[in-house]
Amino acid sequence: MALRYGDDIIVLDAGMLFPDAELLGVDIVTPDFAYLEENREHVRALILTHGHEDHIGGIPFLLTQLNIPIYGTAFTLALVERRLEEHELLDDADLNRVKPGEKISIGPFSIEFIHVTHSIVSAMALAITTPLGVVIHTGDFKVDPTPTDNVLFDLHTLAEYGKRGVLLLLSDSTNVDRPGYTASERAVQPRFEEIFNRAERRIVVACFSSSIHRLQQILDLSAEMGRKVAFIGRSMLSATEIAHGLGLLHIPDNILLRPQDVMSAAPHKVAVVVSGTQGEPMSAMSRIAVDNHKNLSLERGDVVVHSARIIPGNEKSIGRMMNHIARRGAEVVAGSMSPPIHVSGHASQEELKLILNLVRPRYFVPIHGEYWQMSKHAAMASHLRSYGLEETFVLETGQSLEIDTRGARKGEKITVGRVCIDSGSIDEVVEDMVIRDRRHLSEDGFVIPIIAIDKHTGKCEGLPEIVSRGFVSFEEGSELMGSARQIVARTLETSSREERTDWGVMQEKIRADLKRYLNKQTQRRPLIMPVILEV
Amino acid sequence: MALRYGDDIIVLDAGMLFPDAELLGVDIVTPDFAYLEENREHVRALILTHGHEDHIGGIPFLLTQLNIPIYGTAFTLALVERRLEEHELLDDADLNRVKPGEKISIGPFSIEFIHVTHSIVSAMALAITTPLGVVIHTGDFKVDPTPTDNVLFDLHTLAEYGKRGVLLLLSDSTNVDRPGYTASERAVQPRFEEIFNRAERRIVVACFSSSIHRLQQILDLSAEMGRKVAFIGRSMLSATEIAHGLGLLHIPDNILLRPQDVMSAAPHKVAVVVSGTQGEPMSAMSRIAVDNHKNLSLERGDVVVHSARIIPGNEKSIGRMMNHIARRGAEVVAGSMSPPIHVSGHASQEELKLILNLVRPRYFVPIHGEYWQMSKHAAMASHLRSYGLEETFVLETGQSLEIDTRGARKGEKITVGRVCIDSGSIDEVVEDMVIRDRRHLSEDGFVIPIIAIDKHTGKCEGLPEIVSRGFVSFEEGSELMGSARQIVARTLETSSREERTDWGVMQEKIRADLKRYLNKQTQRRPLIMPVILEV
Repeated sequence: MALRYGDDIIVLDAGMLFPDAELLGVDIVTPDFAYLEENREHVRALILTHGHEDHIGGIPFLLTQLNIPIYGTAFTLALVERRLEEHELLDDADLNRVKPGEKISIGPFSIEFIHVTHSIVSAMALAITTPLGVVIHTGDFKVDPTPTDNVLFDLHTLAEYGKRGVLLLLSDSTNVDRPGYTASERAVQPRFEEIFNRAERRIVVACFSSSIHRLQQILDLSAEMGRKVAFIGRSMLSATEIAHGLGLLHIPDNILLRPQDVMSAAPHKVAVVVSGTQGEPMSAMSRIAVDNHKNLSLERGDVVVHSARIIPGNEKSIGRMMNHIARRGAEVVAGSMSPPIHVSGHASQEELKLILNLVRPRYFVPIHGEYWQMSKHAAMASHLRSYGLEETFVLETGQSLEIDTRGARKGEKITVGRVCIDSGSIDEVVEDMVIRDRRHLSEDGFVIPIIAIDKHTGKCEGLPEIVSRGFVSFEEGSELMGSARQIVARTLETSSREERTDWGVMQEKIRADLKRYLNKQTQRRPLIMPVILEV
Repeated sequence: MALRYGDDIIVLDAGMLFPDAELLGVDIVTPDFAYLEENREHVRALILTHGHEDHIGGIPFLLTQLNIPIYGTAFTLALVERRLEEHELLDDADLNRVKPGEKISIGPFSIEFIHVTHSIVSAMALAITTPLGVVIHTGDFKVDPTPTDNVLFDLHTLAEYGKRGVLLLLSDSTNVDRPGYTASERAVQPRFEEIFNRAERRIVVACFSSSIHRLQQILDLSAEMGRKVAFIGRSMLSATEIAHGLGLLHIPDNILLRPQDVMSAAPHKVAVVVSGTQGEPMSAMSRIAVDNHKNLSLERGDVVVHSARIIPGNEKSIGRMMNHIARRGAEVVAGSMSPPIHVSGHASQEELKLILNLVRPRYFVPIHGEYWQMSKHAAMASHLRSYGLEETFVLETGQSLEIDTRGARKGEKITVGRVCIDSGSIDEVVEDMVIRDRRHLSEDGFVIPIIAIDKHTGKCEGLPEIVSRGFVSFEEGSELMGSARQIVARTLETSSREERTDWGVMQEKIRADLKRYLNKQTQRRPLIMPVILEV
């Protein structure tokens, strides 16, 4: 999202997506930054609300195109640094730490950072004062009344802005379909206590490495119950190091156990915290599940706790991981239960209403959610009409909103889109056409007829060859293969001399005839790509 | 699942699966019936517990191999008939209706059908008396205390078997990770009342066509609130016809509205029930969402209710469908809420314990669920040791359990597996190798170098051609393509005369060299398949 006033643009967060199953062979998806590149001389800064991947994961790809100053909290920037280092972009980056309550000025914008509660620490909302009025961007949040670090959502500041008048509210819609209030991060405490009280051997917890709240609770409970704690997994080690260094994670004295000492310590004195909650094949938890990790081998009586949400699309791989864990004789604690083993970081309906009522903006744009969820969020604000709400807008990606002294309206459509990236390398952009081809290939494979034509006589040399994969068992000598070769030969024979001199025409005719034949025989539609070779 | 005593085998249910995203281009997955075919002279019958796809969907594929008698309730058999008709297998099928409480004898087995409550009507558990003792198979169930048809779970019969002594219990593990009790089918009533009370225009409900309980509630409420009801979608029309014909669905007088009359009736007098809850592209609901259905065009103020579970893997397509509905200005009611808009048909922990305690078997095998869920279910039975439980077994697919007068133990492993089917046709089996190729193609596409060799001189004619799709923008004239052709040419030149006469060796050398080069240049691993053409 970008905010523009006259010739000045600021960018709010720069995330990435994990691809749909349909984006075959694509590892990550970033926004297309074309609009920012076209306006490169106007882009002043990137402002970060928090450090989750869907808010910072696109930064390396943005910075290679536009090296603009970045503002965020110490923890958020530390996570950004790690990513920039991987891409060798850290040395040139202009990173600026801000604190909650701090105000910065960038061109016509004055930006105040407001502390909010979320599943990650150091999350901020933004109050952006512009010459036309104040824009409030909530970032991702829930209103946690009892956060584990006791740092409350700064509702006071939000209320003050609301009282003075807010032009536009942009608010998180992720959980708009959930009734009531989202549970506090502390709500998992009783479940962890129950597990720590009854477990007779190792306790292994898989959670997101950035869930510092969750890690703190496991550390504190382990200290209380006399277990040592080992962190396993690259991202887990780096996140705990960052959070500890910044004073955001308190590590009790003498509690840490080195990963290599896990198996030699008494099992009932050990808790292990592992990254890899989504069944990613190379993650520490997945490798432990198939007994392929050098530091931990699960045994009968161990308890493995899945303390994370299941990101849609990962159900099957997570299920497979849990099955492997159960096959090793360990108990799996996962799923919905009461008290819960995981709580969401996003606000439910009553919290969303609280924010709407505190801010009572003139215009409201729901953000962060599916279109149908944003529609629901927009409808939820209707009671604020008597408090000055003039209009709500549900915006598709690329749809701009224009506000001037006369009011707000949908503006021009900006060319945006997604950029598909393979292998996590900046250079490895995958074009849409390549993905379309992969999808076609993944459905029914390919069939390639190869025709050798004598350049002197213009005649076909022997029967056409056909190569194929992913279609059917379509081997040399099979009946279908034989008749397909006859079909191609017949197409060649029955074409006029004129057609035969135009290879484009011949390729198209062969493709069409072969497609009709194969589809009739098999009901499948492989990618057919005739090759004519002049010999 | 098959039960064998001596030389007699009965088969319990024959379902199908919808494929994982990884099974590219596969439409449905059925079991491999090889064991049954090998023992064809011993297979006596197929016994059905209920009519859901994962219990009857494999029947046409089984019947083409073994035309055995089938036993099930009238409703279950009616759904089977529909499938057999599609495959032109109905005329030869031997279908036998049974009623709850009825007993049949098949070889050494005496089978009693016991009514259970589930999301589909006419669901049965099986009490199978064998010379060694009684086997109880629960089928899929929940213990609904207030089913909409007032036909209660026959706990009495189950309890009697338990009192007399049960050798083996096989029980549904789907919801073993859910605490408490699954809500009654009636639990959705208050939510539907709330929607019917406030909706000012059309109410459109998407639900499973086999959810006769749900349909009955919508019909009754519509009658009460003065709305007419239209059924839209092929499976919805056929399921309601079957259920009505069997007296399982009561259709109030004058309530039905023909689909073609929906748009001309007053919007506040209409409820529409539509099939297609999973975002399947050709389903009625998906077509309505994109305004491509002849009978219904959504308008601002319509309420669309998603009253079904989201089958894992379908989150994205369902989300897209809901977004389209919201774009048309209709309100979407979906997700978790209280009172609920959908309830599960499977038993939660307390119900599972109730069944365990009533049956108190000597051996227990959890069925129907992921391995980790079945492990949890097995552990749940441990308190029954003082009531004669001797052992629990968690069985992988293909693992047999042997019971004789000395006791129970894991037996031989049967060759089983899955059969992948394309296009829903019985002939269209997709081999594992073809699926592996598709997966490879879907990741990074293909690169095919084509080398023409003169059959007289043994020399290569000109530079090799290369065709490619789904890899990179690897077009004629691109730098990468040019250097790849050079790589192939060099491999040819640097090969010995001996190597060059062996095409297998040459293909492998070209493949290896090109693979190394392309992987280094692009980090991708396309399928490489050299073709050597003798001209």
